[in-house]
Amino acid sequence: MEDNSLMHTVRVGIIGCGTVGTGTAKLLIENREIIRKKTDLNLELVKVADIDWKREREFNIPENLRTTNYKEVIEEADIVVELVGGKTFAKQVILEALEKGKCVVTANKHLLAEDGIEIFEKARERNLFIGFEASVGGGIPVIKALREGLVGNRVLNILGILNGTTNYILTRMFEENLDFETALKEAKKKGYAEANPSLDIDGWDAAHKIAILAMLAYGNYIDFKDVYVEGIRNVDKLDVELGKELGYTLKLLAIAKKVDSEIEIRVHPTFIHSEEALAKVSGVYNAVMIEGDFVGKTMFYGQGAGSHPTASAVVSDIVDAGKFLLCKSKLNLPVNWETETLKVRKNFYSRYYLRFDVPDKPGVLAKIANVLADYNISIASVLQKEMVCKIAGRENETIVPLVILTHKAFEKDIQNSLREISRLPVVVDKPVLIRVEEEAY
Amino acid sequence: MEDNSLMHTVRVGIIGCGTVGTGTAKLLIENREIIRKKTDLNLELVKVADIDWKREREFNIPENLRTTNYKEVIEEADIVVELVGGKTFAKQVILEALEKGKCVVTANKHLLAEDGIEIFEKARERNLFIGFEASVGGGIPVIKALREGLVGNRVLNILGILNGTTNYILTRMFEENLDFETALKEAKKKGYAEANPSLDIDGWDAAHKIAILAMLAYGNYIDFKDVYVEGIRNVDKLDVELGKELGYTLKLLAIAKKVDSEIEIRVHPTFIHSEEALAKVSGVYNAVMIEGDFVGKTMFYGQGAGSHPTASAVVSDIVDAGKFLLCKSKLNLPVNWETETLKVRKNFYSRYYLRFDVPDKPGVLAKIANVLADYNISIASVLQKEMVCKIAGRENETIVPLVILTHKAFEKDIQNSLREISRLPVVVDKPVLIRVEEEAY
Repeated sequence: MEDNSLMHTVRVGIIGCGTVGTGTAKLLIENREIIRKKTDLNLELVKVADIDWKREREFNIPENLRTTNYKEVIEEADIVVELVGGKTFAKQVILEALEKGKCVVTANKHLLAEDGIEIFEKARERNLFIGFEASVGGGIPVIKALREGLVGNRVLNILGILNGTTNYILTRMFEENLDFETALKEAKKKGYAEANPSLDIDGWDAAHKIAILAMLAYGNYIDFKDVYVEGIRNVDKLDVELGKELGYTLKLLAIAKKVDSEIEIRVHPTFIHSEEALAKVSGVYNAVMIEGDFVGKTMFYGQGAGSHPTASAVVSDIVDAGKFLLCKSKLNLPVNWETETLKVRKNFYSRYYLRFDVPDKPGVLAKIANVLADYNISIASVLQKEMVCKIAGRENETIVPLVILTHKAFEKDIQNSLREISRLPVVVDKPVLIRVEEEAY
Repeated sequence: MEDNSLMHTVRVGIIGCGTVGTGTAKLLIENREIIRKKTDLNLELVKVADIDWKREREFNIPENLRTTNYKEVIEEADIVVELVGGKTFAKQVILEALEKGKCVVTANKHLLAEDGIEIFEKARERNLFIGFEASVGGGIPVIKALREGLVGNRVLNILGILNGTTNYILTRMFEENLDFETALKEAKKKGYAEANPSLDIDGWDAAHKIAILAMLAYGNYIDFKDVYVEGIRNVDKLDVELGKELGYTLKLLAIAKKVDSEIEIRVHPTFIHSEEALAKVSGVYNAVMIEGDFVGKTMFYGQGAGSHPTASAVVSDIVDAGKFLLCKSKLNLPVNWETETLKVRKNFYSRYYLRFDVPDKPGVLAKIANVLADYNISIASVLQKEMVCKIAGRENETIVPLVILTHKAFEKDIQNSLREISRLPVVVDKPVLIRVEEEAY
C-alpha cells in the first residue's frame, strides 16, 4: 500500500470456497469495474483457498488463483475473507490474519456470537478492520444501518426474523395448516433446510445473529449463554391455527430490548399481529425492525441467505476495509464497544398465549383463572373452541383447548403459575406457552 | 483539526432552525455522549443560525449558540448543516460553505435534484464531503444502503413510496373509500399536508427523491426535466375501488429502472398487488425497494418525514463528514458519478389498467378491443361492473365502467390507442389510465 501508483488497488483473498466463497469471487470478478467506478477502489482477487478443487461450483475460479494452502492467502492479501465456517479452524484463520496485520471480513455468526470477544479485542489491539455484515441478514445491510445509518440513536429495541429455514416452515404451517414434520420435510426437499437442521430449527442460528446485533446496538459484550433460546421443533399446528383465529401470526422472533440498565435478549416462537409488516415477511425472507429514540421504527428486509445476497454483504465489507486501509483511522473500526459484559434480564415482561387442554365441564376456567390471579396475571381474553383434542389414554373424554391471552406479566410468574396449573386434575396435558409481542409495529 | 489534542472534536453548525434544524440540535446535544462512545467523535454544536428566534420550538437552543447571521456558522463550523429549504438561498449557503472549505450536510432534495450538478461538482472540485441522507426517506438510511451496503451490485430497479402525504391520502381512500378531496382535508387537519400541498400531491417531492436515488444507483446525472411526473390529484375513488376488487392497491410509486443503456424514471399513481410488501406500507410511512443483481430484492422502511427521524439521518451524515475530515480521502466522497447525463427512456413498457365509461349495450367491448388490437396491445383481463356511472348530461342512460387490464405494452401505443378510443361514440367520458407494476415483489 506504500506505493503511490497502487494507492487504490487492494488485494483480496478468500479462504473457504463453498457457495458463499464462490459467490463472492464471482461478484468481485464480474462487478469489478462497477465497484471501481463507484468507489475508486480496484479490488483485485489475488488468491482463493479451499481443500477441494474437484467439487462443482456455479462459477469457475481461475486456475491461477486457486490454492489449498490458506497461509498463502494471508500472505498475499491485504484483506482476508474467512468463509470456512465452523468455529475452531475459522478462529485460527482469523486470528492468524489479524496477527499478520491483515484486515478481516467474515460471515461467521456462530464464531462471533460465541467467541467474538477474543477476535474483536485482537482487531482493536492491532488497529485493524473486521467486517461481518454477512453474518446477519444475508444481503440486507443491517449492520451498517446499526453502526452508521442510525448512529445518532439510542436503540430501544430490535425485533428480527433472522432465520430463513424456520420462517419458511412457519409460513407453510400458517398458510397451509401443515404440521411441523411435514413442513420440515418440504423445506429439506427445497434445499432450505440442511440434513441436520438443528442449528436453524432449534433457534441457535437466530440467537447468534441477535447477539451480534445487540452487541452493536448496546455497545457492550453479551455472554452468549445468557441468550434465551427456544426453537420451533415443538410448535403444534393447533396453536398456529388458534393464533390465526385470534389475529396473530406465529414467527420465530429474535428480540433484544433495553430495559433500564439491563437488556432482554431472546429467541422463541412469538405471536405478532397478522396485520403488522413483520407478520407479512414470508418464506425464506428475513427482516429486522429497529426502533431508535429519534428515528422511530425502521425495517430492513431482504434475502437472509443464499450465495449471491451473502456475497453482496461480504463485498460491502471488503470495500469498507479498503477505505480503512487507505486512510487508516481508528474511527473506522467497526467495533467500538465496552468490554464490560451487558447484564441480561431473564425475567421477561411480555404478553402470553396459554393453551390448556381441559374437559368440557363447568368450573374449569374458574380454577385456572384463580391460579393466574394468585400470581397477579391479568387475563386479556379467552377462547374456548368447540373442537376435540385427542389425548392418549383419554380418548373417551371430550377434551377441548382453552386459550387464554394475558396482559403483560413476568415470565417467572407465568412459569410458576403454569407449574401449579399443571397439577390441577382438570388439566389433561402439559400447558402450551407462546409469548406475544405487541410492539412489532 | 490540526491540533492533535482536538483530533476527535468536530465543530458542527446549523443554518435554518425550523423543525428539522431544531430536531438536529436536540439530537446532537442529547445524544452527544452516545455518539462519542460509538464513534470516538466529539460532535460539538457551535452555532445555529435562524432569522426568527422568537418562534416557539420543541427544544430550547442554548442562547450562546444562536445567531441571525449564517456567515458566522460557516466561519465557525467544520461541518455546515443546511436546513433552510427552498432553492435560491439554500444554494448560496451551500456553495459559500464549500467555497470556504467546509463539509456540507443537507436535506434539500428540491435543490439537489434540480441543481445538484453545480453543487456536487463544487464539492468534488474542492475535495469536500457532502451528505444528503435526509433528502430521501427521512430517517431510513437508504442512501447509505445504495452507496455502501449494496455497493457491489448493479442496481436493476428501484421502487419507492417516497412521499408520506400522498401515501396517507391514498391509504385513507383505499381503506375507507373516501374521495380525494375528503382525504386531503383530513391530511391537512392532521398536519400531514401543507396549506399549499402541490409539491406533495402533484408528485414533485417524490420525483426529486427518485432522481437523487437514480443518480446514485446508476452513477450518472439525470436531467430532472426528463422525469415523468403525475400526481394523485385526479385519482377517482371509483378506480381505487375497482382496483381493490381486482387485487390491487393504488400507490404513488416512484420508479427507476435500467433498460439497456437507458433508464425509465417516473412517478405516477400505480397499482401493485395488494399482497406485496410495498402495498402494506400505509399512512405516512415510506419504503424503498431496491433490486440488485447479487442481493436480489431488499426493502427499507420507516418514517419518511418528521423532525426526529430526519434529524437521525442528518446526524448520520455529520458523523460520516467527521470521519472524512479525520482521514481526508477522495474515497469517502459520496458522489462519484459521471457528469454525462443519463439517457431517459420515455416510452415506458408496462402493464396498464384502463377504464372506459360506456353504455350498457352489446358490441361495446368488441369496438374497444379492436382498437387495442390494432396497436398490438394484448388484453389480460376484463371487468365490467353492474354499477352506474353518473355522467353530466347523460343521466338518463345506463353508463357502466368497463375495466381492461393489459399485458405489457408501450406507453406510446397505449396513449395513441386511447386517443382513438376516446373518439368512439360509445365512449362517454375521458378514459382513465393507471399503470400497473408487477415487479414490486
